[in-house]
Amino acid sequence: MLTDRRSLLQTAAAMPLTALAANAAFAEGTVAAPRASDKPAAPKDVTRQLAHYIVTASYDDLPANVRREGVRTLLNWVGVAIGGSHHQTVDIAVAALAPFSGPAQASLFGRRERFDIMNAAFLNGVSSHIFDYDDTHLKTIIHPAGPVASAIIALSEMQQVTGKDFLNALVLGVETECRIGNAVYPNHYDVGWHITGTAGVFGSAAAVGKLLKLNEQQMVWALGLAASQPVGLRESFGSMNKSFNPGRAASNGIFAAMLASKNFTSSNGMIEAKRGWANAISTKQDYSEITGDLGKRYEAALNTYKPFACGIVMHPAIDAAIQLRDENKLTADQVERVDLKVHPLVLELTGKKNIHEGLEGKFSIYHAVAVALVEGAGGEKQFSDRAVNDPVIMALRGRVNPVVTPGIDPAQVDMTVVLKDGRQLHRTIEHAIGSVEKPMTDQQLETKFADLADGIIPAAMIRRVMDACWNVENLTNAAEIAKMSVSA
Amino acid sequence: MLTDRRSLLQTAAAMPLTALAANAAFAEGTVAAPRASDKPAAPKDVTRQLAHYIVTASYDDLPANVRREGVRTLLNWVGVAIGGSHHQTVDIAVAALAPFSGPAQASLFGRRERFDIMNAAFLNGVSSHIFDYDDTHLKTIIHPAGPVASAIIALSEMQQVTGKDFLNALVLGVETECRIGNAVYPNHYDVGWHITGTAGVFGSAAAVGKLLKLNEQQMVWALGLAASQPVGLRESFGSMNKSFNPGRAASNGIFAAMLASKNFTSSNGMIEAKRGWANAISTKQDYSEITGDLGKRYEAALNTYKPFACGIVMHPAIDAAIQLRDENKLTADQVERVDLKVHPLVLELTGKKNIHEGLEGKFSIYHAVAVALVEGAGGEKQFSDRAVNDPVIMALRGRVNPVVTPGIDPAQVDMTVVLKDGRQLHRTIEHAIGSVEKPMTDQQLETKFADLADGIIPAAMIRRVMDACWNVENLTNAAEIAKMSVSA
Repeated sequence: MLTDRRSLLQTAAAMPLTALAANAAFAEGTVAAPRASDKPAAPKDVTRQLAHYIVTASYDDLPANVRREGVRTLLNWVGVAIGGSHHQTVDIAVAALAPFSGPAQASLFGRRERFDIMNAAFLNGVSSHIFDYDDTHLKTIIHPAGPVASAIIALSEMQQVTGKDFLNALVLGVETECRIGNAVYPNHYDVGWHITGTAGVFGSAAAVGKLLKLNEQQMVWALGLAASQPVGLRESFGSMNKSFNPGRAASNGIFAAMLASKNFTSSNGMIEAKRGWANAISTKQDYSEITGDLGKRYEAALNTYKPFACGIVMHPAIDAAIQLRDENKLTADQVERVDLKVHPLVLELTGKKNIHEGLEGKFSIYHAVAVALVEGAGGEKQFSDRAVNDPVIMALRGRVNPVVTPGIDPAQVDMTVVLKDGRQLHRTIEHAIGSVEKPMTDQQLETKFADLADGIIPAAMIRRVMDACWNVENLTNAAEIAKMSVSA
Repeated sequence: MLTDRRSLLQTAAAMPLTALAANAAFAEGTVAAPRASDKPAAPKDVTRQLAHYIVTASYDDLPANVRREGVRTLLNWVGVAIGGSHHQTVDIAVAALAPFSGPAQASLFGRRERFDIMNAAFLNGVSSHIFDYDDTHLKTIIHPAGPVASAIIALSEMQQVTGKDFLNALVLGVETECRIGNAVYPNHYDVGWHITGTAGVFGSAAAVGKLLKLNEQQMVWALGLAASQPVGLRESFGSMNKSFNPGRAASNGIFAAMLASKNFTSSNGMIEAKRGWANAISTKQDYSEITGDLGKRYEAALNTYKPFACGIVMHPAIDAAIQLRDENKLTADQVERVDLKVHPLVLELTGKKNIHEGLEGKFSIYHAVAVALVEGAGGEKQFSDRAVNDPVIMALRGRVNPVVTPGIDPAQVDMTVVLKDGRQLHRTIEHAIGSVEKPMTDQQLETKFADLADGIIPAAMIRRVMDACWNVENLTNAAEIAKMSVSA
């Protein structure tokens, strides 16, 4: 109560008289919060209930399916973190931050430099999101692993963390950010916030705080300091600033948890208070998403992974093309044309025909289908400058004919490959690989991982890193994964 | 235009099909932004116009009154940064961050440790806001110096910055944050954001970017990366998290500018875009406040300084008490009682009678008047545990009688000191010292500074630091101020 009183009083203390006099509502002592005023009162202790859960939840409490999804989340994240590590975005950030880094505490995936854990978490978080190829919590479009895994793998190089504790912290971090995301999605996202960075900082703070063994009050403060540091706006999509966001969420979460571990205080209700995070950052607040069925319902079990390094709207077509190619051992010169029945969004978002750069390929259904038929894949390599300018693929994409067709859902595609010998190969996709209905198999995750890590870490190490990820629960020291994932 | 297209496409690319299918507006391609949709279109190039101004504005362009207020802003800020430097909040933050600091690039005011410039900026920013005794831009309640001065004084220890360039950067940083604050105030503040941290990060990025000699495009990116890192919520007021906010705004701004200096990209319109900062963070956006009369109208000239280390609502009464005491050489034993006519807010916010801690004194009009009559001041020392528990002051505050009186404005007070010899001393205050109408004199700023620095830096150095601040425009190296301001 003292904190509540102080908070009110210090609010007033900070206001100049001109503002006080001008603010009639305030002068009357009613301290109006315009957007929040017509809402039902928030349940008390949302932040504290969440903190209590985080500090008490143990690895042994995790259901088997949640553990399994946590392991898959880790493996997928390590792959994308290695895969993005030599992108110009990371090169620039490494150069910019090197003069300020603290001790060489933690590895950069796919690279040789070492940074202090906060900067390393930032850089690995950037790297893992560059291709927009990381994991997705479909209910919120949060990419959960970036902010959380980047933070705790770095911490694991500074203090010993067992694999079980690591996996538990990863799950709790993902759970925290996705539940908080659920509480404010979609309004929060619609207005422009990049929810991976705004909710992600809570995930990082929670997971790091768990490994630092914060007590409940310290965890409340860590979440409060996290609430004070949301990251990212959607306007930045299409620039390096997009992958900045999960990286900065990771380092901000460490910053919050480290301060809280020394008893740097925050308020007790930073998520739910009238002038707290949820009211400031969204016009929707559903606190039951945060506190409901903690330890019973697991958002972390709902994580998904992209099989293709492009917008999900093209995934059904790529999936169909690969299936028909593999089943029929097709080559490009056999193909007369490809007819596609698609939802309007496909042409609206990915209707680009004349393309010259890899990135443009991500917005061309013509290229995506052609390259999938030629190479049997839709990974980052298939959206490179090389692939986009490959003469065989260029020729084939001129023979791809997408037609907007009523009744086709965005999740669906209807593909007919007409061969030069007159045969017609047909495939309908109801749910593409990588969807909730048809998750990527472990084998497919491995193929994706190997493709991303190829040429970056030693070939012999790729298998070993994947094995370490699958085996994380039995590791004495989770940092082993980071140490194995650097370039030669 | 490429960026716009990519932004739209990558937004879509990031969305899962379930979300796409559920979002009819999006599926129609209208991509609704609920809170922004009924607003007139933002002027184009707000961020770029601001960036252009920042990168082209020179010291020689500054009017004399703006320079002078910049110097006063600096002196006041150095005083509060020294004054807060041994508060528990700073001790904790120093202990928490020391293991992660980079090279010992920059000083901490009032202390002996050295940190990398980002961490030093954070810590000095925290220190300078702890007593809520720093400068105030009254139109927005932004405390402008914290985010900006903390950042550029640290940078000045890493690269040589002349005093003229330093002052120019300080003014441009303050100008940037206050203009951006104006654009979204009061809605932004009312809903819960701590505007010093949310707008402050732009000020830091602008000022640091200026000293890094960013080109216009890089400055656009720096502002975009700043927009991605707003800091602070009002719910944290009353905890250490409040002073965290200007500190983190300072370090976030450096982070943004350093990345931009290496061509880490952001979007071009992060302030004004549909899904940019202003629309996400406020229901009010007045972009003319940002771009109107750049180089002609100076918000930086409107900065004010608190003469008393407490809520501004008590300032008129403290001012009156000090005037009557000094003019009449009053001592406590002469005073029979003090009658005060006050605005309702005074008792509502500062009506506490039974107090035992220094902080409680900040919320007691009884204490504030009594200590002002006894000690002739209202500085941090007058709101210490010592002052609150002083028997003479305790006895006198039982004889202070504030009465809510119709017609008294919050800026006013009407005080009558009834003496034991029957005399009545009367004083009406229309505008207290420290208000826009009655700014603190340079001499008063020096007295405040000396009081704050007393016992923290060597006595002989206090005069020298103040002289260096007054003389900043002639310094070859602005870092001299930081180097002189450390403890012995």
